[in-house]
This record gives sequence, C-alpha cells and structure tokens, in this order.
Amino acid sequence: MSETFKKFQEYLKKMDYYNHIGSLMYWDMRTQMPKEGFEACSDALTYFSTEQFKLATAPELKEMLTALRTPEEFEALDADWQFIVKRMLRDIEKDERIPQDFYTRMVQIQTESEAAWEEAKNAKDFSIFAPHLAKVIEVTKQRVAYTDPGKEVYDALLDQYEEGMDSETIDRIFEELKSELIPLTRQILAAEQPDEQKLAGFYDKDQQKKVQDYLLKYIGFDFAKGCVGESEHPFTLNFSSKDVRVTNHYYEDAPISSMFSAIHEGGHAIFEQNVNPKYDGTVAGSCGYMGIHESQSRFYENILGRNKNFWKPIYEDVQNLLPELKKAELDDFYREINHVRNSFIRTEADEVTYCFHIILRYEMEKAIFRDQVPVEELPALWNEKMKAYLDLVPADDSEGILQDMHWSDGSFGYFPSYLLGSIYDGLFLEAAEEELGSIDEILAKGEIKKITKWLNEKIHQYGSTRLPKEVLEAVCSREVSAKPLMNYFKKKYTEVYSLR
Amino acid sequence: MSETFKKFQEYLKKMDYYNHIGSLMYWDMRTQMPKEGFEACSDALTYFSTEQFKLATAPELKEMLTALRTPEEFEALDADWQFIVKRMLRDIEKDERIPQDFYTRMVQIQTESEAAWEEAKNAKDFSIFAPHLAKVIEVTKQRVAYTDPGKEVYDALLDQYEEGMDSETIDRIFEELKSELIPLTRQILAAEQPDEQKLAGFYDKDQQKKVQDYLLKYIGFDFAKGCVGESEHPFTLNFSSKDVRVTNHYYEDAPISSMFSAIHEGGHAIFEQNVNPKYDGTVAGSCGYMGIHESQSRFYENILGRNKNFWKPIYEDVQNLLPELKKAELDDFYREINHVRNSFIRTEADEVTYCFHIILRYEMEKAIFRDQVPVEELPALWNEKMKAYLDLVPADDSEGILQDMHWSDGSFGYFPSYLLGSIYDGLFLEAAEEELGSIDEILAKGEIKKITKWLNEKIHQYGSTRLPKEVLEAVCSREVSAKPLMNYFKKKYTEVYSLR
Repeated sequence: MSETFKKFQEYLKKMDYYNHIGSLMYWDMRTQMPKEGFEACSDALTYFSTEQFKLATAPELKEMLTALRTPEEFEALDADWQFIVKRMLRDIEKDERIPQDFYTRMVQIQTESEAAWEEAKNAKDFSIFAPHLAKVIEVTKQRVAYTDPGKEVYDALLDQYEEGMDSETIDRIFEELKSELIPLTRQILAAEQPDEQKLAGFYDKDQQKKVQDYLLKYIGFDFAKGCVGESEHPFTLNFSSKDVRVTNHYYEDAPISSMFSAIHEGGHAIFEQNVNPKYDGTVAGSCGYMGIHESQSRFYENILGRNKNFWKPIYEDVQNLLPELKKAELDDFYREINHVRNSFIRTEADEVTYCFHIILRYEMEKAIFRDQVPVEELPALWNEKMKAYLDLVPADDSEGILQDMHWSDGSFGYFPSYLLGSIYDGLFLEAAEEELGSIDEILAKGEIKKITKWLNEKIHQYGSTRLPKEVLEAVCSREVSAKPLMNYFKKKYTEVYSLR
Repeated sequence: MSETFKKFQEYLKKMDYYNHIGSLMYWDMRTQMPKEGFEACSDALTYFSTEQFKLATAPELKEMLTALRTPEEFEALDADWQFIVKRMLRDIEKDERIPQDFYTRMVQIQTESEAAWEEAKNAKDFSIFAPHLAKVIEVTKQRVAYTDPGKEVYDALLDQYEEGMDSETIDRIFEELKSELIPLTRQILAAEQPDEQKLAGFYDKDQQKKVQDYLLKYIGFDFAKGCVGESEHPFTLNFSSKDVRVTNHYYEDAPISSMFSAIHEGGHAIFEQNVNPKYDGTVAGSCGYMGIHESQSRFYENILGRNKNFWKPIYEDVQNLLPELKKAELDDFYREINHVRNSFIRTEADEVTYCFHIILRYEMEKAIFRDQVPVEELPALWNEKMKAYLDLVPADDSEGILQDMHWSDGSFGYFPSYLLGSIYDGLFLEAAEEELGSIDEILAKGEIKKITKWLNEKIHQYGSTRLPKEVLEAVCSREVSAKPLMNYFKKKYTEVYSLR
C-alpha cells in the first residue's frame, strides 16, 4: 500500500466521521428533537457542515486524488478503489468550479426558500413562495453553469440524480407509457370500484408499529443493522451498511399508509444494508442513483407489496397484530391497496395514477428550464396539467403546485427518478421471473427472502459502483423501456378490476 | 464588550458544538443505535472526544481565561460571567497538571476496567474484576495527586461530585441518620407487610409509556424542551436548557418501576430545563453538584411521588391509561410503592432501606482510600456490611459488590450524593411547607406545579452558579442535617405501617 493511499484512507475516515455526525443530527432533528432544541442544533449543524465541506473540497484531498490518478498509483489499486478515486476526483473538480461566495449565497437562498415554501403551503398562497422559487431557479441555473459548463441545464440536473439519464430517453419512455396508460386508466376508472368503507375503523398507532416491524422483518430488513423512528414524512437514512434507519408516520384511520411506507422505506434500506461493507465510508458505499434507488423501494412497495400473494402467508398474522383489520377479508384488503382513483396528492396516489403525477412534474420542470415559463404562470400550468392527466382542479395551491417540497431546495430533476424506478421495476420483474420462476408462487409460499437475496446479489451489493445503465445491462441485458411495466399494469388491473 | 471576551464567547460556542455531538452520540448509542452500528460510531466518538479534549485544554483557552481574570477585564464582567471565568480557569489549571501520557493511560485503564466489570458481573466472579479495580484505584489516587496536590484523596473525590462536601460532614449526618433509622426500620420490618400480589399482572409496555408521558407532563416536564427514549438503564441527558432528555425502561410485570423512573429522571430534567437559559453552553448551564441534582430527582420521586396525595387527583387517569391497574385500589398501590423490605439491589430498593445501601458504599470507599483495604478483601467486607445493614448475604458478587458500575470507571465518591440528595430533601420539604403550606394539601388539590415553580425559583434557575452550601443557605438558611429527613420518615412510616 502506497503512502498516498494510506493517507487517503485516513482522510476518508475523517470525512466519514463528519458524515456520521451530520447524518445523526439530521436524524435527530426529524425524529425526536424537542421543538426548542432546534436552534442550538442548527448552529452545531452549520458549524460541522462547514467543516465537512472544507474537508470535501480541500486542496489536500485533490492533491491526494491527483496523485492516486497517476498511472503508477492508479494501476496498483483494485477496480473498486479505482472507481472511488475517479468518482471523487470528478466531483471535486466539479465542486471547485463553484465560487465560495456563490455557494454561500445559494445555500442561503435555498434555506430561505424552504421556509417560504412551508409558509406558503400553510397559507395556501403561492405568491409567498414565488419570488423565492424564482431565485432558486436562477441559482440552480448558475450552479449548473459552473459545474457542467456547456451542458444543457435540465439534462445536467437529470444526470445529477440519475447518472447517464437524459430528457431524450425520458421523453421516449414516458410517451411509451402514456400512450397505453391513459386508456387503461380510463377503463379502470369506469369499472366498478371497491368499497373503501370496508376498512374504515380505528387502527391503534402502537399496533401499527408492531405491524410495521413485522413487515420489515418479513421482507428482509435486518434489525441488527437498522432501526425505525417516527417522523413527519417517512425517509431512509444510512450511516453505513451496518446502520441503516427508516422512519414512518401513522394515521389511526388509515393503516395502509404506514404499512406501505414501511415496505417502501424498507426497500431503500434493504438496498443500503446489503451494499458490500468494503465500500463503507466511501462514495461507493451508498447508491447515489435515485432512479435505481426508487426502483428498489417501489419494487418492494408495489410489485411485491401490492401483490395478493405477498399477503396470503401473513395476512392472519397482520390481523392478529392489528385486530381492527379483522373486519376486512384479504380480498377487501387487496382491492383497497390497489384502489385506483384520481387524487391530488402524489404521495397518497395508487401505483397507476402515480405515474401521471410524475409526468406532470417532469413536464413542469421542462417548462421551467427549457421554455423559461415565468414562475407566476406556473400554478395555472400545473392546474391545467392536473386537469388533463388527473381530471381534477386543485381547490388551492397547497393541493396543487405547493404540495411537494422538492423545488423549494432546488431539487429539480429528482421527480422523474420515482417513475424511472417503476419503469425499471417492470424490467426487473421480467428478469426475476426468468431466473427464479413465478413471483406469485414464491410470494404465496412465503419465500420473499429468495427475491430479496436475488436483488442483493444482482443490484444491492454494488452500491454506487455500477451506473444505472450498467445495472440494467447486468440484470436484464436490455435498454430501458416502459413496455414491461405497462404489461404488468395491464395484467394486474385487468384481473383486479375484472376488465375485458 | 472586550475583544477577548468576544473571542472567548466564540470559543465557548465551538466547545458547545462539540459537546452537542458528543451528547448526541451518547444518546444515540444508548437509545436506538442498531447493534452493528456501534463500531463505526465509537470510532467517530473517539475522534470527536479527542478534539473536544483538545479544545477544553488548549493553551489558547487558558490565555483567554487568564486575560479575562485580570482586574480590568474581570471587573467589566457581570457576576455570572465572573463565575464562569473563575470556574473554567480553576478546572483548566487542575487538568493541565495531569500529564498527557498519564491521562491516556488512565482512560485506557478505565475502559478496560469497565469491560472487565461487565464480564465479571455476568460471570458472577469478582476475581475477573479485581486486578482492574486495583489499577483504577491506583490511577484515581494518582490523578488526585496531580489535580489536588496535598489534599486527602477521598475528600478530594467527594468534593469532585459535591463541591464543598467532606467526609467529616458526611460522617456526622450519616451517623445522625443511622442512629434513628436502624430502629425505625426494625419496627417497620416487624410490622404487617402489604400484599404485593395485589399488583401482580401484565402491564403492556406501550400503555406504560403513556403513563410515563402523563406523569412527566403532570410534574412539569416540558415536552417542548425534552423527549423520552428507551434504554437499558434510565438516565437524563441535557444539551441545553432547551433540550433535556430522559430515558426509561419497562418491565411488563412491574409497572411501578417505569412510573418511578419517569418521576425520578423527570426531576433531574425539570432542574435542567429551568436553568437560566443565559447559561446555556457554559459551565454554569447545568448543575454539576450531584448531591443537589439527586435532591431534585429524589424530591419528585420520593417526597412527592410516594406521597398518597400525589396520586389522589390522578390515579383514575393512570388506571385508564393502564387498565390492568384497575385491579388495585389507590390504597393497595400506595402501600406497595412504600413497601419497605431488605433487598440486594440498590436501584430497586425502597426509600428507607436505600439509605443503608449508600451508607454501606460510603464505608467501603473509605475502607479503600483511608484504610487501604486490599481489593481481594473487599467482597468479604461488602458481604459483612450487607449482613449488618440489610440482614442479607449475597448468593454471589453480582448481587453484592459487582452490582453497580460506578467503581469500574473510577467514579469513587459519587455514591454519597444519592443519600445527600435525600437528606437535603428533608430540609427542602420543611422549607417548602413553611413557604407554601402543607405539601399534602397542595398535592391533593393537583397543584404540584406550584411546588415545581417554587423549586425552579429557589434552586433550578441558578444552574451551577450556587454551590451546594449556598443552595442550602438560600433555601432553608441552615446547616445540613439528617433530622428533617428522619422526621419525614418517622411521620410517614408510622402511618403507612400503623406503627405505635
């Protein structure tokens, strides 16, 4: 081992310590910190984030990386370390093009914008958010001009969340999907709907937590390497492959929400828990591709979790943990978890209409960055699209354009990842069935862990070391396409809704 | 504001950031961290603790403090800041007399000793712990020789946990207590005992948590400035007056345990939540006197919490939250929470026999540091004292000398604080009744927050700025004495046990 490589590893450890406490403060603020503790914690967080940023952008680090990139040093590294060095060098070169004072200003604009978004959402008044959004759009464009000079802004943003993805590909597969999904959805909505009253009742929160733990264990979440917290919005957070945490939230009149959030976040977490521990504390140690990441959470949530066979071996156990559910037969429950209906809020949508929520946002983002639509016109455009795709007109912006926080902190280009994830899932489902046989049968036998093991081997263990395209290539040897997802939808909903 | 003072405040902020993350990692490791996450977190903790230690002992800090101690600077400070500067300068001067290599060796010996203690306790074998204990005693003596040259070792240790306290005073008040408590206890034990079967049952953990939250709120714990976690042993942790956390543990066959742990830790937490927020992030901001601190937790737990009138206004609510408790009338419950019996384990003892557990440990510590009793002879001495005070002989050392972890990390001199706390409580109770009127009546009216307010004003707000003696002087204008506690015991247990 060369001296430089040794020094580099020490440096990575130190960076990892800062990442650890940054993540821990994030976790704490969202899961348990008392209200009045926030101010002191934000101050500490700001201090350590600055230190972390200094470490991540230090000339010393760049020197080490540059030294490790010389042929002599580089060839002595194994392929994983070569990936890590290349990746870090690329990122540091991008980041160092951002002037320090611009960066500070950008962070401040984002912070103010997040607060303004929250205020606007509560006040149901887009005009409070509009000037902040305009500034966030402006600094986002400027940031891309620094990090990816010469690259088209929106493609650069897409690439940032799903490396190698571009709007040409997304246009193609979203169109592919739309052409068949719109008529299918019409058919579904015209068919007889399940009676949602069958699940009406009071579902005790503590019992829901027991169900959540049961489901997490069942799908393969390892409690020796993870735990569950409670937060306003469910999320997954990983410290290393050995400590991956999820959160959940609970509605005592709607038990399905916490069950499917648990399975969804569980999917993200199983991914992170099964990354090769060799990558812990490096950029390879966590999957940085949001489309691929969402493909795993959504595979568990939708492809597996909304399959009737998933529940067959465990429904009785779940009913015993949550006795109120005894009022619903498995059939009622199954129909309700696949109840398709147009609705305002993305995060509450079923897996079919969810696609339209994403397509709408994707088109909005293109309108912002390609067509330069001014912020004042965005709510009307949103409502127009909502009417077109979901046949609904928001009563106010809080159930329209203000519903998601993503744009408030500049996370443009993130939304498509959700649908890309589902589209990948269509492909993964085909591949899994080719290799393992019928997923229905595996689930019905209670052998879901076979599927988890397959995903661990095919996808999870590689962390970030395989790009999205390489994952697809390795798992199913084919180009991305929405057809398999569409086939899955058609087959499933023809049966669920007795379509012809 | 002088330049030095400004710089000093910036420095304190930075120290506080490190304290914040150190506390947060401590909290996380004990309340929720998954098993496999420990290693990575300990590495991060070691790293940041070292940084924290460097900050706390930096020559730069001493220079600032020395500058602030010059008449010109010092007189410009208000009394609180004068206290802080003097206190920090004193501590840094003590600490800097400890040679760095000795300090490192001491920490290592303590760490190894803690592990050996745990092993020995599990194996019920004192001989595993003995050589480590001998080393810990040795380095403790050596440490005191550095920090407090010329001072008698055990008095220096006592002073470290309860500033201004010495063994002469403790001898006097413990003897005072013993002379009356031994005969009273004999009388109690000879009387008719309550039927503990009246509370036998299954008490759901989630319901116990609801009771815990109810009790915490009831006594004045502020959930906007605190939260509750679950850990093996209950503890209180404060980040600042605005974020003070407690933990609890639950036995589903013994609901009293979590109720009284909640009230006890709640007492510590109410103290910390009500320190003047001006002191946040400084040595004044948290009470560093363990006797005074324990006086507050034990005032809530024993003086208030084990008073029948405490429960009168709320017992029905508690029964509704924990329906299994409906089998027990308030009278049964009251007798059980004041059930006096000789027992092996300090932390499970009632408030009367608890005193003997502490007196025993205090005498053991004197034997170690004054009489130089060799470690091999300590278990026999322990058992002899246990027989004398509690009429019990431990079956093995895990229920004898190995039961507490305090000595394994060198916390000699801590134990007396618990009983000092109760002795202070006798004095505080008298003072409270003089100023507020009958505590029984206040409690019976459900007005406990009046008492909390009184304690806030008399004690809590001052944080560390008043030494234990000054607290006593301010609250009850008298010397410490065990008589008021003894009067409380006699009055209460004469009634509980219908003694003549």
